[in-house]
Amino acid sequence: MTNIDFLKKADDNLPEIKSTIIKPSVETKRLEAGSEIIIDLGNHYVGYFSFRMWYLDEYIDAPVTLAVRFLETEGELDDDYSVYGGWLCQSWLQEDIIKVDFPGIYDMQRRYAARFIKIKVLHTPKPLTLSDFSFRAVSSADMSKLPPFKTEDVELAAIDRVAVNTLKNCMQRVFEDGPKRDRRLWIGDLRLEALANYYTFRDTALVKRCLYLFAASERNSLGFLPGYVYENPVFVSGTWFIVDYSMMYVNSLCDYYRHIGDKQTFLDLYPLARSLMDSAHLTTHATGLLDVPEEDIFIDWCAGLEKRGALFGVYLYTLENLVSTLEAMSHPDAELYAERLARGRELAKKLLFNPDRCAFINDIDKGQYSVHTAAWMVLGGVVTGDVAKRVILDVILSPDSVKPFTPYMHHYTVEALVKAGLVDEAVKYIKQIWGGMVKLGADTFFEAYVPTDPDFSPYDDRKVNSMCHAWSCTPTYFIRKLGL
Amino acid sequence: MTNIDFLKKADDNLPEIKSTIIKPSVETKRLEAGSEIIIDLGNHYVGYFSFRMWYLDEYIDAPVTLAVRFLETEGELDDDYSVYGGWLCQSWLQEDIIKVDFPGIYDMQRRYAARFIKIKVLHTPKPLTLSDFSFRAVSSADMSKLPPFKTEDVELAAIDRVAVNTLKNCMQRVFEDGPKRDRRLWIGDLRLEALANYYTFRDTALVKRCLYLFAASERNSLGFLPGYVYENPVFVSGTWFIVDYSMMYVNSLCDYYRHIGDKQTFLDLYPLARSLMDSAHLTTHATGLLDVPEEDIFIDWCAGLEKRGALFGVYLYTLENLVSTLEAMSHPDAELYAERLARGRELAKKLLFNPDRCAFINDIDKGQYSVHTAAWMVLGGVVTGDVAKRVILDVILSPDSVKPFTPYMHHYTVEALVKAGLVDEAVKYIKQIWGGMVKLGADTFFEAYVPTDPDFSPYDDRKVNSMCHAWSCTPTYFIRKLGL
Repeated sequence: MTNIDFLKKADDNLPEIKSTIIKPSVETKRLEAGSEIIIDLGNHYVGYFSFRMWYLDEYIDAPVTLAVRFLETEGELDDDYSVYGGWLCQSWLQEDIIKVDFPGIYDMQRRYAARFIKIKVLHTPKPLTLSDFSFRAVSSADMSKLPPFKTEDVELAAIDRVAVNTLKNCMQRVFEDGPKRDRRLWIGDLRLEALANYYTFRDTALVKRCLYLFAASERNSLGFLPGYVYENPVFVSGTWFIVDYSMMYVNSLCDYYRHIGDKQTFLDLYPLARSLMDSAHLTTHATGLLDVPEEDIFIDWCAGLEKRGALFGVYLYTLENLVSTLEAMSHPDAELYAERLARGRELAKKLLFNPDRCAFINDIDKGQYSVHTAAWMVLGGVVTGDVAKRVILDVILSPDSVKPFTPYMHHYTVEALVKAGLVDEAVKYIKQIWGGMVKLGADTFFEAYVPTDPDFSPYDDRKVNSMCHAWSCTPTYFIRKLGL
Repeated sequence: MTNIDFLKKADDNLPEIKSTIIKPSVETKRLEAGSEIIIDLGNHYVGYFSFRMWYLDEYIDAPVTLAVRFLETEGELDDDYSVYGGWLCQSWLQEDIIKVDFPGIYDMQRRYAARFIKIKVLHTPKPLTLSDFSFRAVSSADMSKLPPFKTEDVELAAIDRVAVNTLKNCMQRVFEDGPKRDRRLWIGDLRLEALANYYTFRDTALVKRCLYLFAASERNSLGFLPGYVYENPVFVSGTWFIVDYSMMYVNSLCDYYRHIGDKQTFLDLYPLARSLMDSAHLTTHATGLLDVPEEDIFIDWCAGLEKRGALFGVYLYTLENLVSTLEAMSHPDAELYAERLARGRELAKKLLFNPDRCAFINDIDKGQYSVHTAAWMVLGGVVTGDVAKRVILDVILSPDSVKPFTPYMHHYTVEALVKAGLVDEAVKYIKQIWGGMVKLGADTFFEAYVPTDPDFSPYDDRKVNSMCHAWSCTPTYFIRKLGL
């Protein structure tokens, strides 16, 4: 059952949506059936589109049918929508077929995410013009609150700008994962957006709102949280219960307390955090590791990935965050979790670490050598110092290791590098991944980015990928926090 | 140039649009991608459609794409829109592809004309329901003003009901020709709608508005009126100048004075009427008949129709109407037009009538034997008494004559029968044509009706035909005026 008290607290923190009008400049042309025009908004925005349709030689004596397509990147301009091979609903493709009945301003009703708008005239009996293009960009981010930021490194400056734009465009009624798709609140995205937010817009209320939304949700029989919730127009709990995301909820709560110092909210939600940690702990009774169904683990969109090692790293990482948060407020539970953390690290070292190869190659992961397990083991504090350095660098540089597919996992790889004290390598990694997207002309960072496979899609069709995705916004967090 | 003074007078008479909410009862079913539902509104209406989309097992995590189709008759329910062979813009097909982003009430933005609504679920990731269907029917007709009417004849009663419904659904900001298509003010439709209106809703202001709209329009170099004008959202003159429709404007003005007695408006617009009659007269200088380009004559949507004889009949009919109107107000111009009428009738009898066959078969019409010429000759008073009776009956009954294709021309055929004193035959004709449509289940009368060819379309594809068309509403005029 939905927790109505928590839902009310979430709605008490509903943000105001701010609008900015973008007026792209486009030459007015004579258009006939079959004509196309492309509008460049000059940057990626989320919002509402309107235009003026008018007649040329004589009044148009029938509705005008237009296909209006919204593209997040230039590379999507020539996509063929008649072929779709993805396993997500193709309604996500941002194209609407509209009929304009009268000359004048036409306001499209839906919200879109776009840098480019491509309009094709499908049916008209007479020539026409399209003009007065206007895009009302919406976001709950307050640009005036963005602290000024300077770096000598022009590449990092560009990455920071794109990261902030990504975050801004995902900040709506909630921290959305992607304004094109899925347009909803996911725990994994929330955690990273909130981190970036603490160093940029510092919208405390929005984080609080999202924490309460998950607290209001229905957990599964094991006690874990749904990976996502819907809140517009009705609150509905998601149905995919993700164990690593449940841990990320605990991290989000700890982060919130540590950045904002709002002890009252922390304590209000701490029983949920404790219950999530206890649910995780309960699954360890057989092997000591988290024993949960494969489909309840996310880690990354990476086909064939062995996730057990990484999942246990997420658990240890969360324990560490929780312990330090509880210790900071002298909370009596700190000791219990510190003890579990210490035991977990020992077990991980024994079961998951291969000292001969100085790598996390083990039976639990069926011998698979992945950045994922290594990064999460470093983040979980299973190895430290020079060993941690070698573990994380080796796996990143190895031609044979499994690499992250999403900026979500790229983030935790960077965080592992930073934790291992490899800040220069972290910067290099950021420039390789997020800088790689900037080099492709990104105005916002993508949901998935595989340098060797630019058409990679977790959904089997790149056209449905989200090219402005919350979990990709964290370079600004590293750059601003570390003063890079 | 648009006459702004006349346009202002037209807009002073802009009617109020009344709304009625129709709530069809439809069983709520589980719908998935590919599912279809059909909603029966129970009658033909013009207006705006809304519904509730909701989820069943779980929240729908993508926009739902629906194809929503509005059909004026049951016979259109199975039409295949992927094949279109018409020469009118296919945007007129009443189908919109919409994406419903959220569960809840969805308001479609455009106005439709429909008895049936067919919704097909094109894309959805999860099952859904559609319910709470609501159709806000709009019309400027005031149903409370409709005089009670009784006839013993159940067939005529049904025809009257459908005729009134047709008129009501065409009465919007102007007398529209058809609410599905072309949704604008045509002179030919206006004249017949106004006649039906005098015996039903008696909306004086709407007639006045439409008369002023045409008076505001731009005439062609010969001085004739455009057959149609647009007035929403801007006033624009049409570009097809139709000589017989220009005559019908004069008839509409005369009808208005004779039914309403508004002499001021008549005299305000009489200079235009005179100028139209003089323009027509000027074309007679060579042959005595109206000598105008073939494409400037309408008469009927009837391939291969010879229109010269009929056009001259329209001219004479108009002169008769004008003369009797001017005489009723002792206007000095009456004499001039009476003289032209007398001379025209004589000429028509000489050039167009074949006394040996007692029929209007002549060289002017290239020997073609049509109901059109005969009806207009009777209406123009070229033949009277028993000759008129024989002329009109013979041509209607002949298997070899060219028959009307539209209820517009059917109307004038009935009027010719009535003028010839053949009221019983007029009733029979009404029952055959309009009763034929009622037997097909019509809630409103069609734009075109050929009993022997139910799929006839003036536009080469029945799917674009208007099945609620103003010029088909006149049985109520005959039934109520003549007390049938």
